[in-house]
Amino acid sequence: MTHPSTEGARPFHVYDTTLRDGAQQEGMNLSVADKLAIAPLLDELGVGFIEGGWPGAIPKDTEFFARARTELDLKNAVLAAFGSTRKPGIRAEDDPQVRALIDSQAPVVTLVAKFDLRHVERALRTTAEENLAMIGDTVALLVREGRRVVVDAEHFFDGFRFDREYALSAAVRAFEAGAEVVALCDTNGGMLPDWVTEIVTEARAAVGPDAILGMHAHNDSGCAVANSIAAVGAGCEHVQGTVNGYGERTGNADLLAVVANLEIKHGRTLLAADGEGEGGLAEMTRIAHAISEITNIAPFARQPYVGASAFAHKGGLHASAIKVDPDLYQHIDPRRVGNDMRMLISDMAGRAAIELKGRELGFDLTGQSELLARVTKRVKDAEAQGYTYDAADASFELLLVEELNGGRPGYFRVESWRAIVERAGGRGVPATAEATVKLHAGGERIVSTGEGNGPVNALDHALRQALVRVYPVLESFELIDFKVRILDAMHGTDAVTRVLIESSDGQTSWSTVGVGPNLLEASWEALTDSAIWGLYHHGVDPS
Amino acid sequence: MTHPSTEGARPFHVYDTTLRDGAQQEGMNLSVADKLAIAPLLDELGVGFIEGGWPGAIPKDTEFFARARTELDLKNAVLAAFGSTRKPGIRAEDDPQVRALIDSQAPVVTLVAKFDLRHVERALRTTAEENLAMIGDTVALLVREGRRVVVDAEHFFDGFRFDREYALSAAVRAFEAGAEVVALCDTNGGMLPDWVTEIVTEARAAVGPDAILGMHAHNDSGCAVANSIAAVGAGCEHVQGTVNGYGERTGNADLLAVVANLEIKHGRTLLAADGEGEGGLAEMTRIAHAISEITNIAPFARQPYVGASAFAHKGGLHASAIKVDPDLYQHIDPRRVGNDMRMLISDMAGRAAIELKGRELGFDLTGQSELLARVTKRVKDAEAQGYTYDAADASFELLLVEELNGGRPGYFRVESWRAIVERAGGRGVPATAEATVKLHAGGERIVSTGEGNGPVNALDHALRQALVRVYPVLESFELIDFKVRILDAMHGTDAVTRVLIESSDGQTSWSTVGVGPNLLEASWEALTDSAIWGLYHHGVDPS
Repeated sequence: MTHPSTEGARPFHVYDTTLRDGAQQEGMNLSVADKLAIAPLLDELGVGFIEGGWPGAIPKDTEFFARARTELDLKNAVLAAFGSTRKPGIRAEDDPQVRALIDSQAPVVTLVAKFDLRHVERALRTTAEENLAMIGDTVALLVREGRRVVVDAEHFFDGFRFDREYALSAAVRAFEAGAEVVALCDTNGGMLPDWVTEIVTEARAAVGPDAILGMHAHNDSGCAVANSIAAVGAGCEHVQGTVNGYGERTGNADLLAVVANLEIKHGRTLLAADGEGEGGLAEMTRIAHAISEITNIAPFARQPYVGASAFAHKGGLHASAIKVDPDLYQHIDPRRVGNDMRMLISDMAGRAAIELKGRELGFDLTGQSELLARVTKRVKDAEAQGYTYDAADASFELLLVEELNGGRPGYFRVESWRAIVERAGGRGVPATAEATVKLHAGGERIVSTGEGNGPVNALDHALRQALVRVYPVLESFELIDFKVRILDAMHGTDAVTRVLIESSDGQTSWSTVGVGPNLLEASWEALTDSAIWGLYHHGVDPS
Repeated sequence: MTHPSTEGARPFHVYDTTLRDGAQQEGMNLSVADKLAIAPLLDELGVGFIEGGWPGAIPKDTEFFARARTELDLKNAVLAAFGSTRKPGIRAEDDPQVRALIDSQAPVVTLVAKFDLRHVERALRTTAEENLAMIGDTVALLVREGRRVVVDAEHFFDGFRFDREYALSAAVRAFEAGAEVVALCDTNGGMLPDWVTEIVTEARAAVGPDAILGMHAHNDSGCAVANSIAAVGAGCEHVQGTVNGYGERTGNADLLAVVANLEIKHGRTLLAADGEGEGGLAEMTRIAHAISEITNIAPFARQPYVGASAFAHKGGLHASAIKVDPDLYQHIDPRRVGNDMRMLISDMAGRAAIELKGRELGFDLTGQSELLARVTKRVKDAEAQGYTYDAADASFELLLVEELNGGRPGYFRVESWRAIVERAGGRGVPATAEATVKLHAGGERIVSTGEGNGPVNALDHALRQALVRVYPVLESFELIDFKVRILDAMHGTDAVTRVLIESSDGQTSWSTVGVGPNLLEASWEALTDSAIWGLYHHGVDPS
């Protein structure tokens, strides 16, 4: 499939292996349904190839390719089945592993082949010549069967350094047999960009100008993205990677960062649909997060381009100046990749950051310098006591509301609370936790007792149960994340505890903070802030 | 401070800004105590410079530098105070911000200065000439005061592209005034390696061969490590970065990966102590994790070199072949950075580590393969549940003793425990915490109630009070540090809690771990382990 390219009429291949190489990440376990859900997102992003798995070798993948035929309707990408060259000593047509690749009916087949003589001899235990025949035979068979063939040159870079001629002869053999692409793999991930440039340049010279070379990088040296870009600079027109840099060990090249760099900084158009307003770069952030929901791998906040923190500014220096000119402080406009700029509140930010933050939250504080001074002082004092508002927007908003209105919304008045944890037996007997909350709301005095797997959980249940009678919308609120930190713990447990809570009503999520001499007081503050903010944002009037 | 270098006699500067630029990461909030705990670890790693913060501008940092004078005993690194050039229109000596840098008494002062004319005009609102004077004056003053001066050339690369002459003239001015280093900063993080090579090459030509140029990269394009290496290749002899790539937005360059790449792949010796067997590269993994415990930022498993998954092999292809020849599948031997290979045959690696650990604690387990297998399995199973023995030697030792002797020392038998926290009033009323412990020791049944500023503190007092009657030596035991982490907190408080406790008897200190569904059960385990280990090591016989 060709893609529009600003550099002549040669196609550029954006080749995604999230579902195959990416799936080898520690802790990732994709079902067939997961793969069938991720593929349309990749298609929407606009990649050209989706490597779906290893049919035959992995039963779930055989099923994926079978179901894909009827359940997937890809607009931009074609499916690729991954497998390997035939076994030594038999014919390609007699190798069941190869047959399974044909049976998958994927229009593209990607074969991993040995390009490092040491692997041929020590791992495969066959001869240099037989390995070349394995490559040639298998490629030729698949081409005869009407498939487009990509050959993944395993350990290419290390193999080139060990025996240059052999590695290059394997690439030549693959193209002679009809392969469309030979993708050079830095399988161990140990390459640095200059070495990639040297080696790809030599490979390009050896295979001639018409052959399509690809790059498949791993991040063991922390240079996978840079290595991919170096390879493209040296003549590769096919790049393999995974969404969010998933993969074994340190992961594959983060395909999103590679594509964003090439499109934005090198002015290329690589994703199908870019320019047409659908899919493409501007959807990258949303798609990256949607895929992480399916893989159930927590997104990495500091991930380039699409991370939650990628454009979040904190330093006092920058915050005051960003007001002046956002472009002076960002390498790109975050909206180009569907992300946005966020200001973080901290003891380093000044009034400008707080004003901007207020605006982000819907408050226009322009010119209200006395109010801003008050809020800035409260934030600094609070942070000196251990509060952090960076990751607790809802608590910050309540602070603003308090300063603006002279007080928080009065949804309830707490009379007292109590939590008990008891292990009524020896080692191995589980403990029980119970909490009782007494408060006033809606004109009533309410006593509520909740249980849980711990004291905070029990307090949360008791509070919720007490309030839901007066404010039924609380039914939809849920605690979805909880972090604890002991601050300045130089002496035993006489230290300040900080709790960060994330809550959700099923549509939005919000974060609150609590600080206290122990976990329970800190949690109580974060829990009540969470309830108040949730009610406030649902426009509930205090009863 | 000079460092050994294999390339001539020029020093190479490994400059760590974890405590200043790294601290700007979203969610990071380092106390003075945290910084005082991290600095010795950086020193142990062998960096040359530790940038501690911005004294004067940030009160916590003023305190850090003051306390560092008496509380830090650095062997390899020197401290650097970060700040900025003087304000426009006043003399450097009259600028309180600059005075504070001098007052910090840090031997190195690093000044951020504007090198991008647009920033001079739009952000600082001053003239090109005044900005150069600001640079010259401030550097000269600090040099007169006997400080070594580094100038951080803010937005250097973007500034060079906007107005090449201005950016270079600012660098020249800095050196003329006596700066030791001008560090070229890719402040927005938008550079790609080839561009860095071009621009640094031109800068090097402009400042001449004697001046020391540095690189300060950010990871917005996913190329910070590669950009740093490119800069070194083009003539930089000073590299700035942070441990674990901490920092604002997508973070600073991961100093660990940069240094590991230069040392291992370019054969350079950059960390002090490398070659002498202490600190250095081989301690990198341990130190990276120790620092992440203090910052309370969960380690990133896929981080190059030091990540938990960095050498963990999963792919069926590789797993069968690694047995044959580990080097065919790893870009380096993980032990060079203190990490290890984890996979099917890792039982071998696991047992060796445990045998070594046992020896470290005084147990000779040579040849006891059945015992080792049992212990290895217990450790693996425990770690899968959330235990970590990296930072809990005493708990590990009790595990060993249990396997060796068929049980732990029987100092006491717990019947039950209970903790209550109660806030008997509204907001602002402090809570009270009380715990009751019932146990058998010394032939007695003891019921003891303790109070504290929180439930764990109360439990600790109750337990201590119960046992001190039978084992008076406990009087000298004290809880001196306490860390909590919620593991796999994907939904609310239904997550596993891990507690690490450090105790002391005034002469030695020891660490224990506890894991449970809530803070109290986890703490109870760590507290009881602590008491048992303490008594065991004092040679007390169970009563």
